[in-house]
This record gives sequence, structure tokens and C-alpha cells, in this order.
Amino acid sequence: MKRTISALARNEPGVLAKMATEFSRYAANILSLAAGETENPQVSRIVACIEGDNAALDEISRYLEGLETIIQVDDLSRKDFVDRELVLVKVVMDPERTAQLMQVFEVFRASVVGMGQETITVEMAGDQERVEGLIHMLKPYGIKSMCRSGMIALKRGDE
Amino acid sequence: MKRTISALARNEPGVLAKMATEFSRYAANILSLAAGETENPQVSRIVACIEGDNAALDEISRYLEGLETIIQVDDLSRKDFVDRELVLVKVVMDPERTAQLMQVFEVFRASVVGMGQETITVEMAGDQERVEGLIHMLKPYGIKSMCRSGMIALKRGDE
Repeated sequence: MKRTISALARNEPGVLAKMATEFSRYAANILSLAAGETENPQVSRIVACIEGDNAALDEISRYLEGLETIIQVDDLSRKDFVDRELVLVKVVMDPERTAQLMQVFEVFRASVVGMGQETITVEMAGDQERVEGLIHMLKPYGIKSMCRSGMIALKRGDE
Repeated sequence: MKRTISALARNEPGVLAKMATEFSRYAANILSLAAGETENPQVSRIVACIEGDNAALDEISRYLEGLETIIQVDDLSRKDFVDRELVLVKVVMDPERTAQLMQVFEVFRASVVGMGQETITVEMAGDQERVEGLIHMLKPYGIKSMCRSGMIALKRGDE
């Protein structure tokens, strides 16, 4: 089972260490994690995509909710969230296939952010499906390096 | 002192917990952290922006380099990196100022990803300066909620 949870945490030392330790205590694998500032400088948002058995994932959510430093925990699988991820991909640029490659970038609205002698680096933001789609399309060209931000999300609507 | 480091780590349980614990042991504050997949399914990239005194940050880098699970540590302050961050912002939409707001989105090339009765949600990818710039411009309109991915980065050029 995979689950993506979003936690609002007070900026206190060791919050992330506590969370990550708890994940590994329950043998839950962290697939991605993004921790960053929110609209409130005293509060951070940590979005983690974790994999493990269902009971363990439930335990983890309950544990997090019980922590003094955690203000709120949301399960992003509930689908009332706008989820986005950022990816940077450095792909091999073969002169004979450049036009094709550019077409892939256009379809996925990926923007070129860097260029070398033999490679081109693009960025794309989208939901996980689109990010996976781009990576899948670029693989045959040769992916030299890649960096994904992990999912971030906000509730849909005004709330 | 702030420092952004990028570590390539083997996907083994507890890597992130170990890193985060080490950061707090040296009283280094984690400003943002992004952990995600790379081109190699066995390897993750962890980019962390940390704040602390210089000696502590050096200690941390050395500690990470010494870990069995860490393949490589780079200091992203060295500027030979393309760095990007993704931000989602839900901002209050006042009918009288909608046109102005749209202009801000256009200048920053922020895309609308959601809309409510009283708010509009946009995403933007850019370097930290641009992300800070957008947030600064949107503050007067009223930021309802915000989520930042933390910085991700790839080396410039072909390497």
C-alpha cells in the first residue's frame, strides 16, 4: 500500500527526525518527502509518500496526530487535493532525434532550463501521472540524471 | 549561515531518519528538504537547505560523506547547479482586484490550478528568488494557504 500524508508541523528542532524515525520503526518505506515553509513562518508542511502495510500506515497517522508539534494530518489519497510535483531531467540530446525530443517537451509542457554539449535539462510541474509520463517518454533517449521534488498539495476549493 | 546540500543515497530503510537526526544533533535547522527518486530506482536524492553555524554545517557534510548509504554529497551553494522549487499558493480573489492579480500571475508565469468561490490557487516553478518574489507580490492580496516543495537541483552542463 502507498499513502500520501500531509502534516502541518510547528517549526521545532527534530520534528522531521522524529517523523522519519517513526516511519522506519513501522517498516514503512519513504518514497518521497517534501518539507517546506507555509504561509505561517512558524509552521512547516511535510508531505510524505510512504509505502507499507495498511495497519502500519494507520498507526503512523495516529502517532503523528498525537504529537504535540503536529497541528494537522491529512490523507492526500482522499482526492480533494490539488497535487503537484516538480521534476528536473537531464536527457541525452542526439542531433538526429532533437526534433522528436522537442515535441515530447511540448506535449508535456516541459521547459528547457539548461543545455550542455550532449544533454539538455528540462523542468516540468504536474501531477504524478504526468511526471511519470514524461519520464517514461524520455527514457528511450537516455536520462543522464533526474531529481524529483516529491508531491506537494493543497486542499481544493476555498478551505 | 544557510547551506543547501544534495546527497545521493542508496534506498535503505532509515537513511532519512539518520540524516535528520544528525541535523538536529548539530543544532542545524532544516529550512526545507526534498527527497525523491532519481534515474536509478535504487538511489534517492535528498536536497536539504539547512541553517546553523559554519563549523556545524561542515561537520554534517563530513558525517554524511562518511556514511555507507550515501554515495555523493554536493554543496549547492557552489552555483554550478540549476536549482528550482515548486510552490502552490491559494490566494484570496477580490473581484475588484482580479485583473491586477492576473497580471502578477502573468509576470511570474504562475499557472492557475484551482479555483473556489473566494480563492484562486496557482503553481509556479522557479529559482528561490522568483518563488520568494511571487510570494512577496501575493501577500497583500491575502495568502490563504501555501505549500513549497523545497529546492531541487541538477548540475549544470553534461555531467
